[in-house]
Amino acid sequence: MPNCIVAQSGGPSSVINATVAGIVKANQLNPLYEHVYGGLNGIEGILQERFVDLTKMSDHENQVLRQSPSSALGSCRYKLRRDNVEDLEEIFAIMEKYDITTMFYTGGNDSMDTVAALSEYAAEHNIANRRFIGCPKTIDNDLMITDHSPGFASAAKFIATTALQCWQDLNVYPPSRREVFILETMGRDAGWLAASACLSGIVDVLILPEVSFDEDKVMNRIRECIEATSKCFVVISEGAHYADGTYIAAAEARNDLFGHAVLGGAGKALEQMILDNDVCSRCKVQDLSTAQRCHASEQSLVDVTESYRLGMSAHMRSADPSFTGMMVGVKRRTDVEEYDVEYFAVEADKVANFVRNFPKEWIEPNYVGVTLDAVDYMKPLIEGTPDQILKDGLPEQVVPYYMRGEEVEKK
Amino acid sequence: MPNCIVAQSGGPSSVINATVAGIVKANQLNPLYEHVYGGLNGIEGILQERFVDLTKMSDHENQVLRQSPSSALGSCRYKLRRDNVEDLEEIFAIMEKYDITTMFYTGGNDSMDTVAALSEYAAEHNIANRRFIGCPKTIDNDLMITDHSPGFASAAKFIATTALQCWQDLNVYPPSRREVFILETMGRDAGWLAASACLSGIVDVLILPEVSFDEDKVMNRIRECIEATSKCFVVISEGAHYADGTYIAAAEARNDLFGHAVLGGAGKALEQMILDNDVCSRCKVQDLSTAQRCHASEQSLVDVTESYRLGMSAHMRSADPSFTGMMVGVKRRTDVEEYDVEYFAVEADKVANFVRNFPKEWIEPNYVGVTLDAVDYMKPLIEGTPDQILKDGLPEQVVPYYMRGEEVEKK
Repeated sequence: MPNCIVAQSGGPSSVINATVAGIVKANQLNPLYEHVYGGLNGIEGILQERFVDLTKMSDHENQVLRQSPSSALGSCRYKLRRDNVEDLEEIFAIMEKYDITTMFYTGGNDSMDTVAALSEYAAEHNIANRRFIGCPKTIDNDLMITDHSPGFASAAKFIATTALQCWQDLNVYPPSRREVFILETMGRDAGWLAASACLSGIVDVLILPEVSFDEDKVMNRIRECIEATSKCFVVISEGAHYADGTYIAAAEARNDLFGHAVLGGAGKALEQMILDNDVCSRCKVQDLSTAQRCHASEQSLVDVTESYRLGMSAHMRSADPSFTGMMVGVKRRTDVEEYDVEYFAVEADKVANFVRNFPKEWIEPNYVGVTLDAVDYMKPLIEGTPDQILKDGLPEQVVPYYMRGEEVEKK
Repeated sequence: MPNCIVAQSGGPSSVINATVAGIVKANQLNPLYEHVYGGLNGIEGILQERFVDLTKMSDHENQVLRQSPSSALGSCRYKLRRDNVEDLEEIFAIMEKYDITTMFYTGGNDSMDTVAALSEYAAEHNIANRRFIGCPKTIDNDLMITDHSPGFASAAKFIATTALQCWQDLNVYPPSRREVFILETMGRDAGWLAASACLSGIVDVLILPEVSFDEDKVMNRIRECIEATSKCFVVISEGAHYADGTYIAAAEARNDLFGHAVLGGAGKALEQMILDNDVCSRCKVQDLSTAQRCHASEQSLVDVTESYRLGMSAHMRSADPSFTGMMVGVKRRTDVEEYDVEYFAVEADKVANFVRNFPKEWIEPNYVGVTLDAVDYMKPLIEGTPDQILKDGLPEQVVPYYMRGEEVEKK
């Protein structure tokens, strides 16, 4: 029997490990592969032949893996370029050496591009029996075609829960204390995460990257809330920008290795505007930062289950030798009343390098929030809480595989 | 039968409402009072006779109240001064008018001072049959005499969980990416909250207000970690300061109404030092801010249960007409192996206006963390997770009483 490998890429999420757990479990139930290797640190570690053997993972570890956030196999920001023939040849050589027929790659846009690039290369060079399968994950929910991406719902649940709880905190002082609370979320280009705060039902002002930031209008809207109730709860996406495209956090912007702007500070920038415009003299900013993508204590049961099953579905589909260059996605069933999904496949290059924005028709005018349709879309995704395995009072976590010193001997 | 009133003061916590729930439930089981009033917005609302009637709270509401963070009765920052005779007289007049014999007041240092001031006034003026009882709550855990304060453990659990999960996130990239992660916690004068992050077992550098900040030593320690593993996880208290007392976040410091410094930005200040000193070129700061005191999804079962029972104990003790000017505290039993507590009473003025620091003997030298004794003290406090009642996928929360328009008619 040949072997397969699974690797993770891009920014972590709180359920990305569940896809790995699903692939491993699927192979235990239906062994298509002799070994399920885990590639450490994505493509970067695969090129260095840094593998662990996940084939015989215990049930307990599988369960703990599902509740562990971040990428237990490690991640990378290494971009596999189509013109880097050396890298491409090396990957196929390594796959041949280890008799690996299938590579599962979990990630976002850039990872789907890697999947597309590798299968294109195989096709162009008539390399038979090598399959590359993408499993979507991104808290940003900005991947095309799939109804949603595993990782989004748990981040959304953390954001909405935190919003609800911070709102309780904001309101405790009497109306004589006027105060604005600003919750900043991730979301460079797409407003899904900021919008998810509206699931809490307490957002007064919502600032998304999909709507240009108009300082006068935003200040007026906040002023209106303060006049009405003395408090105002604002949610702002890190990607909030003016009509000309300048980020309101521009002062702090710098670029990462992929040329994406690294943002942060939209909340602080907004606070300064509120103070400068005399809208309110008291402001608090909570930047959810890293916590929103790794706070697995708020995993949604729906999310972690889908991420797990998506891995199983990818494993099952990989039995077909022609199944390559594909991403396995989630489709919401329309033939049943209750929320339910099925898994489907789509060409990875139809997903890679596109961004799915938060739909304009779901955005209420004047920064007041999202429509009921948006809430109806998001609500079922955050349902349920998985049972958590605790250890000394804290959620038990896997020791990351890249730290264990259990790497498979190099061939 | 006379009536009692319960009110909340100071900064919220995620279990302060459980004490109110305990008082209400105790009175349902053992009715010492005709009505259990809730005073809205602490002393400030009591002076305005803004009361709600909690006497017949349903079991469901009692349970939801226990899992709702912040102060459901509202809080205040109004400081009752001993020389403000008008206020003091007004309070006794209101208590007489509503036939209130007992006032339960939940809060921290300032609230215990209020309890002491009111009972002193009653004693000095021979006012009989008015009792003032303090119930401790503060995430800061800086109250004297009580083994710990309800609210601390849940904040500690949130902090340690978030540390553990952010550490997973920090480490995903290969060693070629050197990175420092800085987690900033509250704790102006006492380092309990920052120290609690050590429950996660992953803290490399810990900076507490109890140890002067020595820039060279801290930079060296961080450099050491980066050299060893390429990553460094730092936890810093907002109250970190130099030997001369200057906060390292001094640039952003301002004073609140009580003359306490309002801090924030210690993490950002540290990041700047790390960059300026060329210790590491990549730094991320997560300021836990408001979330750490209201993120009730991480309630510790031990904490919420103790907060609830402490309320019950206070109610029971109030049957004694001479029980006034007292705070009910938590004592750790030393006669049993397993962690267990009993409740006891102490004069509120022995607690008010003192600060209990994190013990020096529990701090390891060179900013490396805390001793095993410290971990042994904290570990049992964060045990267990209460069952959460969900509503639309999010933890159900009480509608704050000060928003319900259900105030008792004024007399």
